[in-house]
Amino acid sequence: MTDPIRELEDVLGPQGCLTGSRVTETRIWDASGAPWQPPLALLRPASVAEVSAALAICHRHGLPVVPQGGLTGLAGGAMPCAEGVALSLSRFAGVEEIDADAGVMVVRAGTVLATAQKAAGDAGFLLPIDLGARGSCQIGGIVSTNAGGVRVIRQGTTRDNVLGLEAVLADGKVLSHLMRVMKDNTGYDLRNLIIGSEGTLAVVTRAVLRLRPLPPASETALCALADYAAVLRLLAMARGRVVLSAFEAMWRDHFIMSGGLGMFSGPPSFAVLIEVEGPGLETLLETAFEAGLITDALVARSDADARRFWDVRASERATRSLKGLHNLDVSLPVARMDEFATACARAVRRLDPGAECYFFGHIGDSNLHAMIDLPNHGNAGDRLDRIAYDLVQAMGGSISAEHGIGTLKRSWLNHSRSADEIAAMRAIKSALDPKGILNAGKVI
Amino acid sequence: MTDPIRELEDVLGPQGCLTGSRVTETRIWDASGAPWQPPLALLRPASVAEVSAALAICHRHGLPVVPQGGLTGLAGGAMPCAEGVALSLSRFAGVEEIDADAGVMVVRAGTVLATAQKAAGDAGFLLPIDLGARGSCQIGGIVSTNAGGVRVIRQGTTRDNVLGLEAVLADGKVLSHLMRVMKDNTGYDLRNLIIGSEGTLAVVTRAVLRLRPLPPASETALCALADYAAVLRLLAMARGRVVLSAFEAMWRDHFIMSGGLGMFSGPPSFAVLIEVEGPGLETLLETAFEAGLITDALVARSDADARRFWDVRASERATRSLKGLHNLDVSLPVARMDEFATACARAVRRLDPGAECYFFGHIGDSNLHAMIDLPNHGNAGDRLDRIAYDLVQAMGGSISAEHGIGTLKRSWLNHSRSADEIAAMRAIKSALDPKGILNAGKVI
Ligand SMILES: Cc1cc2nc3c(=O)[nH]c(=O)nc-3n(C[C@H](O)[C@H](O)[C@H](O)COP(=O)(O)OP(=O)(O)OC[C@H]3O[C@@H](n4cnc5c(N)ncnc54)[C@H](O)[C@@H]3O)c2cc1C
Ligand SMILES: Cc1cc2nc3c(=O)[nH]c(=O)nc-3n(C[C@H](O)[C@H](O)[C@H](O)COP(=O)(O)OP(=O)(O)OC[C@H]3O[C@@H](n4cnc5c(N)ncnc54)[C@H](O)[C@@H]3O)c2cc1C
Repeated sequence: MTDPIRELEDVLGPQGCLTGSRVTETRIWDASGAPWQPPLALLRPASVAEVSAALAICHRHGLPVVPQGGLTGLAGGAMPCAEGVALSLSRFAGVEEIDADAGVMVVRAGTVLATAQKAAGDAGFLLPIDLGARGSCQIGGIVSTNAGGVRVIRQGTTRDNVLGLEAVLADGKVLSHLMRVMKDNTGYDLRNLIIGSEGTLAVVTRAVLRLRPLPPASETALCALADYAAVLRLLAMARGRVVLSAFEAMWRDHFIMSGGLGMFSGPPSFAVLIEVEGPGLETLLETAFEAGLITDALVARSDADARRFWDVRASERATRSLKGLHNLDVSLPVARMDEFATACARAVRRLDPGAECYFFGHIGDSNLHAMIDLPNHGNAGDRLDRIAYDLVQAMGGSISAEHGIGTLKRSWLNHSRSADEIAAMRAIKSALDPKGILNAGKVI
Repeated sequence: MTDPIRELEDVLGPQGCLTGSRVTETRIWDASGAPWQPPLALLRPASVAEVSAALAICHRHGLPVVPQGGLTGLAGGAMPCAEGVALSLSRFAGVEEIDADAGVMVVRAGTVLATAQKAAGDAGFLLPIDLGARGSCQIGGIVSTNAGGVRVIRQGTTRDNVLGLEAVLADGKVLSHLMRVMKDNTGYDLRNLIIGSEGTLAVVTRAVLRLRPLPPASETALCALADYAAVLRLLAMARGRVVLSAFEAMWRDHFIMSGGLGMFSGPPSFAVLIEVEGPGLETLLETAFEAGLITDALVARSDADARRFWDVRASERATRSLKGLHNLDVSLPVARMDEFATACARAVRRLDPGAECYFFGHIGDSNLHAMIDLPNHGNAGDRLDRIAYDLVQAMGGSISAEHGIGTLKRSWLNHSRSADEIAAMRAIKSALDPKGILNAGKVI
C-alpha cells in the first residue's frame, strides 16, 4: 500500500495537507489544557469533496483522524495525537445562503460563529446561538459539541437550532440532509445523533441554522442577593413576569475574584446578571426589592455598562490569572445547586486547605460551572473530579451540561450513563465508523 | 429449544400473554388502514422488568415483536404480523411523578395522552403536546412517532418536550436515562435516536416530559381569506404581533367538505383558524382586515364556539364519511404549499377525473396534510404517492412531517433520504437490534 500522507497530499494539495514542521506553525491544540501530540499531518480540505476524499484515504489505511474547528473546546476533544492526522475545517468557511422566507441560514462548518452572527444580523435576523468563544469557535465545533452558551434559557441549545445537517462519515460517504423545514419524521434522527458526538461519528460540513426575529432591545441588571433561596425565588418571579434572555448567577467568591468588588457596597453572597427582552426589568426589580429578594441592583444605562456586567460573569481576567485551574460544567436540579456548591467546596478543602472554588453558571438552564484552584495539589484533578461527579450522580445531574466529554471526562462518563448505555453508544460507533478512525479515544 | 410462546406465558402470566382466539378479542390494528395479520400472541407486560424479560425471550428465539401503543398511528407502524408477537404497553400506565420544581412529569409509556394532560393540568401545568387522538394515543406511541399535533408552532414537537427516556433494547437491556435537566452533553444522543424510531430500535417504557406554565387564556378565530398570498401575509403579521398557539389553514374544498359551509356568507378560498395566547387577537384581526388580508372573521365567544371551529379543522365527519381516503402528511416550504396543492390536485385529476383533494394543515410549522379521494381508482394509491412525493422532493420537503414512515411510506423513504443515509440507518438498526426482531419490515 502507498503512504497515506502522500495520497492525502496528492488529493488536497500543498495548502490542504501540511506536514513536518509546517504542522506546528499553526495552533493545533484546543483550550482544554489536555495533553496532545503533533499529528502526522494537518489536513485543511477546502470543499466537501475534499473532506470526503481525505476521509476515504484515511479509512482505507485505518489512519486516525481528529476533526478540528475553532479549537476553543474545553474537553480536549480536538486534541491531536501522534499516530494520526488532524483535519481542520477552517478553509471550508462562509455563509452560503440566508433564506428569509424559511428563516434559516446555510453555513459551512468552518465559519466562525461571530461571522455567522453578523451575517444574520445584517439580514435582520438573530442567530440564536451565542457563547463567549464566539470570535473563534466554528459552526462545526458548535454543532459537534452541541454548545450551550448564554442564550439557552430563551433560545435552546445548538441542537434546538439546527434544522438540517451535512456530514461526512468515516469512510467518506456524505450524508446530506439540509432540510429547511422544522418537521421531518423520515427515519432515524441522524442529525441529532451527529450533533454532540464530538467528532467521533462524522465530520460536520454544513448546517442549516434557524434564525429568529431580531429581539426587542434588551435590558440588563446586576443584582445582589443574600442567599440562594432568594436566587431561586427571583428566578421564579422573573419567569412569570418578563421574557428572560439570561439569568446568570455568581457565588460570592467568583464575584470577588472576577472583579465585582466595589460594584456593591459590600460583596453580596450571590450576584445575578439578568437580561430581559423588551420591557419589564425595572418593575421586576422593584417588586423583587419590596419582596426582600434582592438587596441591591445596578441597571445598565448603556451598552458599556451591560458589557461590564457580562465581563464580571465571563471572568476572563480570572481565567488568565489562575494557573492549574480545574473546570466543572455540570447540570443539576436548580434547587440543589447551592447544596452541591457547599458540599463540593467542603470536600475540596479537605483535599487541599488552600483550595479556592469559584462557582457560577447558567442557573436558568440548570447548568453550574466551577473553576477550582488547588494551589498545593496541582495534580489532584482526578480526586477532585471524583468528589464532584459522585455528588452530581447522587443529585441526578449530568457530568457535562455543555462542554462535552472529550478526553478529560471520558473516564467519568459512567457517572452519567449506565454500562448498557455506553455499550449501545459503542455499538453505534462501530456501526458508523467500523475502523474507529474518527477521534479515536475520545468520548467513549 | 422450548416454545417461545410457552416461555412468554410463564414469564408474563395469563393476563400478560394472550394467545389463540384471545388475541383478536382486543383491537390490535392501528388507524392507518394498512394490511395486518393476527400475531402469534399479544403480550401485555405490566412492568419494565416484564418488558425486558419478554424481549430477552423473543430475542433468543429471533421472534419478531411489534410494539403497540394506543393504535392511533396513521403509518401502519403498529400493525401486527403473523410470524411474531404484538407487545402492548397498555398495562404499564400511569403518571408516576410531577416534579414541580423541575417542571417535569415522569410518565409510563402506556399512559393515554389525555390522562397525562389532565394530571399536568391538575398540578397547575400545561403538558405541551396535544393532538386530535389525545383520548387514545399513548405516551410511548407519541414518543416513538415524535408526534406533532396542534401546539407545535408554540411548543415544538414531542422531541422538544422529552427530557429523559427509558427504553428496552431488542435483547432486553434497559437503557434508563430519566434526566430532569435540560442540558446534558454526555455521549451520543440515544434519546433522540429512539424518539421517532417507530418501535424499530427500542420499546419505550418511561419518559420525563417537560411541563410548561399554564398559558394565559387563549382566543380563537376563524378567518376567511381570498388567496394563499393573504394566508402567508396573515401568518407573518400574526407572528410579529401576538403569541400564536395555532395557525391552521384549510383550502376551500376541505372547508366545505368538513362542514364549514354557511359559516361565512360564501365559502372562502382559504379559511384559517388562529389561536392566540393572551391578548391581541381582535386588534390583529382589525389590522388584517384593514390591510385587506382577510375578508371576514368569526371570533369565538365561548368554548363551544372554539370547539366548533376546531371541529371543522379536524374534520372527523369527513374522515368518517369518505372511504378509500388517501392521506398525505408532508413538510414543505410554507411559501410553496399552495403551488404544491395546485400541482398535486391537477396531476391527481389526470389519474382520476372524479378525484377530490382536501388540503389543510399546520401551516405555521410548514406541515401540509391532504385527504385524497379517488372514487374510480381506489387502488391507485401508489401512483398518487408517486405524484405527491415527486413534487415534495422537488420542492425540498419531507414525505412525512409527523405521522412517520411505518409500512405505508417505507418504499418512499428514498424520496426524503439518500441511499447513504438509509444505509447509515440500517447500520444503526443492526447495531442495536442485530436479529432485526423489533418491528421488522417497518420504516427501513
Ligand atoms: C471563553 C470560552 C467560553 C466558552 N463558553 C462556552 C459556553 O458558554 N457554552 C458552551 O457550550 N461552550 C463554551 N465554550 C466551549 C467551546 O467554545 C465550545 O465547546 C465550542 O462549541 C467549541 O467549538 P470549536 O469550533 O472551537 O471546536 P473545537 O474546540 O475545535 O472542537 C470541539 C470538538 O468538536 C469536534 N469538532 C470540531 N469541528 C468539527 C467538525 N466540523 N466536525 C466534526 N467534529 C468537529 C472536535 O473534534 C472536538 O471534539 C467556551 C470556551 C471558551 C474558550
Ligand atoms: C384523529 C387523529 C388525529 C391525529 N393527529 C395527529 C397529529 O396532529 N399529529 C401527529 O403527529 N399525529 C397525529 N395522529 C397520528 C397518531 O395519533 C400519532 O402518530 C400518535 O403518536 C400514535 O400514538 P399511539 O400510542 O396510538 O401509537 P401506535 O399507533 O400504537 O403506534 C405508533 C408507532 O409507534 C410504535 N410504538 C407505540 N408504542 C410504542 C412503545 N411504547 N415503544 C416503542 N414503540 C412504540 C408502534 O410500533 C408504531 O410504529 C392522529 C391520529 C388520529 C387517529
